[in-house]
This record gives sequence, structure tokens and C-alpha cells, in this order.
Amino acid sequence: MNLSNQIIMERIENVFKNIQSSRTVEAVLIYNRDSLDKNFLYMTGLDTGVFENCGLLCEQNGKMYIFATTLEEEILKSLEEYVEMVIYKDKHERDDKLKSTLSNYKTIGISFDSISHSLYLHLKELLGNTQLVDIGNAFQNARMIKSRDEIVKIQKACDIASTVADDFPNYIKRGVTELDLCLEIDYQVRRRGAQAAAFQTIVAFGANASKPHYSGANVPLREGDVVLIDFGATYSGYVSDISRTYLTGKPGDDVLKLYSTVLKAQEIALGMIGNGVQVDKVEKAVRRFIDNHESFRGRFIHSLGHSIGLEVHDNSYPQEDFKKTFVENMVLTVEPGIYLPGLGGVRIEDDIVVEKESCLILTTASKEAVIYEV
Amino acid sequence: MNLSNQIIMERIENVFKNIQSSRTVEAVLIYNRDSLDKNFLYMTGLDTGVFENCGLLCEQNGKMYIFATTLEEEILKSLEEYVEMVIYKDKHERDDKLKSTLSNYKTIGISFDSISHSLYLHLKELLGNTQLVDIGNAFQNARMIKSRDEIVKIQKACDIASTVADDFPNYIKRGVTELDLCLEIDYQVRRRGAQAAAFQTIVAFGANASKPHYSGANVPLREGDVVLIDFGATYSGYVSDISRTYLTGKPGDDVLKLYSTVLKAQEIALGMIGNGVQVDKVEKAVRRFIDNHESFRGRFIHSLGHSIGLEVHDNSYPQEDFKKTFVENMVLTVEPGIYLPGLGGVRIEDDIVVEKESCLILTTASKEAVIYEV
Repeated sequence: MNLSNQIIMERIENVFKNIQSSRTVEAVLIYNRDSLDKNFLYMTGLDTGVFENCGLLCEQNGKMYIFATTLEEEILKSLEEYVEMVIYKDKHERDDKLKSTLSNYKTIGISFDSISHSLYLHLKELLGNTQLVDIGNAFQNARMIKSRDEIVKIQKACDIASTVADDFPNYIKRGVTELDLCLEIDYQVRRRGAQAAAFQTIVAFGANASKPHYSGANVPLREGDVVLIDFGATYSGYVSDISRTYLTGKPGDDVLKLYSTVLKAQEIALGMIGNGVQVDKVEKAVRRFIDNHESFRGRFIHSLGHSIGLEVHDNSYPQEDFKKTFVENMVLTVEPGIYLPGLGGVRIEDDIVVEKESCLILTTASKEAVIYEV
Repeated sequence: MNLSNQIIMERIENVFKNIQSSRTVEAVLIYNRDSLDKNFLYMTGLDTGVFENCGLLCEQNGKMYIFATTLEEEILKSLEEYVEMVIYKDKHERDDKLKSTLSNYKTIGISFDSISHSLYLHLKELLGNTQLVDIGNAFQNARMIKSRDEIVKIQKACDIASTVADDFPNYIKRGVTELDLCLEIDYQVRRRGAQAAAFQTIVAFGANASKPHYSGANVPLREGDVVLIDFGATYSGYVSDISRTYLTGKPGDDVLKLYSTVLKAQEIALGMIGNGVQVDKVEKAVRRFIDNHESFRGRFIHSLGHSIGLEVHDNSYPQEDFKKTFVENMVLTVEPGIYLPGLGGVRIEDDIVVEKESCLILTTASKEAVIYEV
């Protein structure tokens, strides 16, 4: 296990504490199919891996079973001291072993968000009398509040991203393409110690910057383009997520106004966030400030940010079905943006940790309206 | 739309043809949550994108609706000619619009493998009288047999991977780490025109090569190590997947035997595959050949290969619940391997397309037992 037994026990406690019916839920089950459920990393303390078709069953007292194919057996050896390994060769053996282990419980908690409908049906068929109840929120809530060791890893992921961003002046040159920059950024992120880019890097020139989820194409930089870059680093399983926008050529007053409005909007948000502050209040203040500028009204078309951690979108904090206040040790992005279809866009995004009275900014890359003569 | 209308119509036809109850299924629904369901790319002809919280409804006659957030609106504009765009700002508006559109159908097909159990429950609640039936197999079966335009894209993804693999001699040097090689490979793959590495690149030195899903760490190459590399390229949405193993230093007879046994096992498989041939027969012949060597018995611990296409594991062909014969225009990996815990492993993997009488190998990188003095 990469983490101390104590940290893992704290995580188990956190998850069970967040189960509304924790008295009846005797164990929680995580089961990966093609893609890795990050709850698997959270509960094992592993920081990377594939773990296709592997499962984890965990009781409140810390007793853990790992179900794994022979393919993953060697890699999971490090966990043997702490968990009971249940290895299977094929589907039939897996089903037999799942059935005999899981049937010992009356009620098992599972995240309905993380398992496919077909896996749910399969487990129901396998387990005659064991009840499966949704505990997705318990994982979300537990992972929403970061422990010290998690914040240290996110800080490192932020440090890597910040140093890469501060090197952008070396790469933003006339004729360089969006894809050239994507490639260079992803290379630099890993060369500086990240496991991987945290998500598909976004580089958008000029009008492309008006599409928030645009990624990048074979488009060369022209003088006068805005350059919007959104990327992150994964370090020891944890991610950072940062956006910067640069101006090139001789930007007109309209572009400078666009930039300064987004920057000011972010300052408003950063100045308000602290433990106990209502998310809605901050979101509205930012939107009101942007909408006060007639030409930008209604052009802040996404939410103010989202939680980050083992995933880039750990949980979108401003949504109505989640905690409505900022809570100490949440780690979040703060990323206002203004998008003008056909013209361009500006987004400025930093990662923060919520503190008692304020917030601490984890990403330190410069966000002056640097203007490049390209 | 990136593809011609005719190709899209053929894909729609293929999917509906593969629905067992296609008379009653009036439309198919694909709905992305955090991660992109590749069926969305298949049915739209788009080759990349995020499309979080976007859906697609398609009738047998080709009528398509795209449900999308304002965030994705700009990027989906290219589809407007062909599909009806349904744009929503938030969850409530989405649910209203999903309900009013989907309620027009008595029976909608959806892949139970591709939607979460919670989304299934949510849709059931939304749609009083509309029945949801599982058509996951229809997508799988349709995507299993590739059309000409798909094979062209996979060939290009294979070409990129092959040229990168043929350059490995330049990178395999004493002291280079597994992670150095991972980084260099991913960089080279993209520099040669791929959108991305197809999956997390595997570089394993020495004993690490005995773990099929090991990825790579800060481990330097020592003389005498085997070097196992497994990687691929994504081109226009389609992937390649290739493994090569290299010998360094002065390999003993045991290592040379290990390598030649895997190479010969692959030749046996490649020589047998063709339209109509039983998968099981090939798999057994390979396993029998390996198990005939006493020291390798039982050490071929995964299946012979899997289908590739829009995904790296499009569908594992040798599994009992899928087509049991090779069929023309399936594109598959052929990848025998032998893994000796604590000692090392050898895997050799190529991508092929099944033809009438034989198979065509798409990956051309050298697989001689090249020995590097490092």
C-alpha cells in the first residue's frame, strides 16, 4: 500500500460516516469494468493502474477484499499484507467467488453512478437476498473534503502546471499551431514529473477560443489572435487544472476590456470564497459583474468551477444537488470566462483550497495580460 | 459531419440490423455523462470531442436528435444540417426536453453496458410509458465489422505506431528509464500525426515485464534486461495497439528460447486466422504450443487478442459470449505472451484485418529478436 494504514482507515471512516444508512450497510463494493472507478484508488491508496474487471469490498472495520484477474495479480501484490486477495481466471470463477463472498452480507453499498446498468442487473441476479443500496454520495462527500496528504499532492500537480504555464512565452510564436502547443505542453508536463496530462489539453487561437470544449487543430497562430490554454498535470493520482489566456499583436480596447473583465470577475470570486460562504452568492456576484457589461451579457456560459482531486470533475460544486456552501479543505477551480461566438474568448482558471476565512491559491502562474509580438 | 451522409446511413442500418427486436425498437439513445460513449462518435461520424452530458437519439430512418449543453453548442454546429439540435442550459431544461422528445416512442433501445445504473433509473422515472430495452450487442456487433473507411483510418494509426517502433533502437540505451521511454514514445506518436497515444503506454524492463498491465516507473535500463513496450496511436478516432519485446546485453539461451517461442506462437495464430475459422481453435493451438514447453506451461495468462476500432478493447473476441468465428473485416490484435513472475516476460502483438482466406497484418514494425548492446 502506498499510503499508511492510518490514512486508509480515515478514508474508510469518512465514507461510512457519509452513508445515510450506515447502520445497515455492512460493506461497500467498488467494481471496475473497462474504466477505472477512482473510488478504487481512493480506498486502496494506490496512485495509478488499470485494474480492469477488478473489485474491492470493504467493511466498516477496515476489512478489505480485492477481486482481481490473474492479469492484475502481480501488480496488486503490494496490497497483500492489508487485504484478502481473491483471484480468478475467468468470468465463471469470478461470479462464483463474488457470489460466495458478497452473499455473506444483508446490505452492500455501491455507487449507482459508477456501475453500469448491466453490471447492476448481473449482481442482482447473482445475489439472491443481498440488498444493493446507492451510496454514490458517500464517496463524493468523503472525497470532496481533502486531507493534508491529498492537498500536498494537488499542490505538487499545481506547481508542475504553473511552471509549464510560466514558460509559455517561449512557445507562443507566429506560425506555431494549436496542436504544436498541445504537444509541447503535454511533453513539458510529464518532463517535469507528472504521471500524465490531467485531461485533453485545450489550445484555442482566435475565434476557436469561443468554444469552451474545443481542443486544438492544425491552425497556425496569427498576429492579433487571443491564445486560450487550459491544461493540467496528474501527480501521484491527483490533478491540477489551470487556464490562461494571452493576447498577441496589438490588441484593441475591446479585447483588453474582455481580458480585464474576466480577471476582475475572478478576483471578485477569490475575494469572497471561504468556509461557510454560500456558493450561490459568489456565483451570482460574478455573473452580475460580467452581465453589467452590455457586450458580455449572457456570455459566461458555464459554472464558476468544479472540485478537483483524483478526477478533474470530482464534483461540480455549484450544482443544486450538492453542498451549497464552501467548506474548509475543498479543492476547487475558479474559472470565469466570457465567450463571444465567431470572435474569441477569455478564461482564467486557478485551483484553490478553501480555508477558514478565505482561500489559498495553489496555482501561481502569472496572469498579467501579457501581450506577445508574434 | 466529418463523414458522408451515406456512410452514416450505413452505420445506422448496421446497428438496427443487429437489434434482435428491431421491429419494436423505434429509436436508439446514446447518452454521455462524464466520459464519452464511443457509440456517439460512431453514429455522428465525429472523430473527437468531449460531449459531456450530451445525448443522441436516432431513428431507423436516419432522423437524429442531438441533446447538448450550451457548452457544446458551438462545437456541434457542423452537424446542424443533418440533425435536430436540442440545446439546454441546465438539468431541469434537459429533463423537460428529454421527456417531451423521448415520450413520443413506445420502445427505445439503449446499451445497458454504456449507461450507469443511476442514469437508467433517472430515465425510467422521466419516461412513464416508454420502454427501455438493452441493445448493447447491436452496437458491439455493428462496430465489430469494419467498413473500408474505418480500415483506412486504423491502417494510418498502425503506420504511425510502426514507424515509432522501428525507431526504438535510438532510444534503448543504458540508464534510460521506463518513464523516459514512455514520454518519448507518446511524443513521437503525436509528432507523427496521431491525435493521442491510444492508451497508457507500457514500458517494462526486466522482471517488470512479467506484469501484463504494468505501466512504467523511474527504473533505469540495465544490461541484460528484456524491454517490453506496448503502445498505440489514435488517428481520426481509431486506434492501433502494438507490442514489441527487445533483448539487451548477452541474452542466455533461456531468454532466446522465451522470445522465439512467443514469436512462433504468433506465427501459428497468424497462419490460421481467416473468415469462418473458429476463434477457439486458434486460441487452443497457440496455448497448446506454449504449454508444450515445460518451463512456460500455464504462463500465457491472457487471451490471444481483442477487437480494436474506436476503442482499444472494442470487444474481446475470444470470449464465450461473442461471435466464435473470425469474420471478414474484423480488426483484431494477435498478441501471445509468456510471463515468468520475478524474471520477465515477452509479448509480441500485431494488428490484423480478417480476410476471406487469411489475414492482413496492418502493423509492419520489425520483430526480429534484435539485441542491443546497452
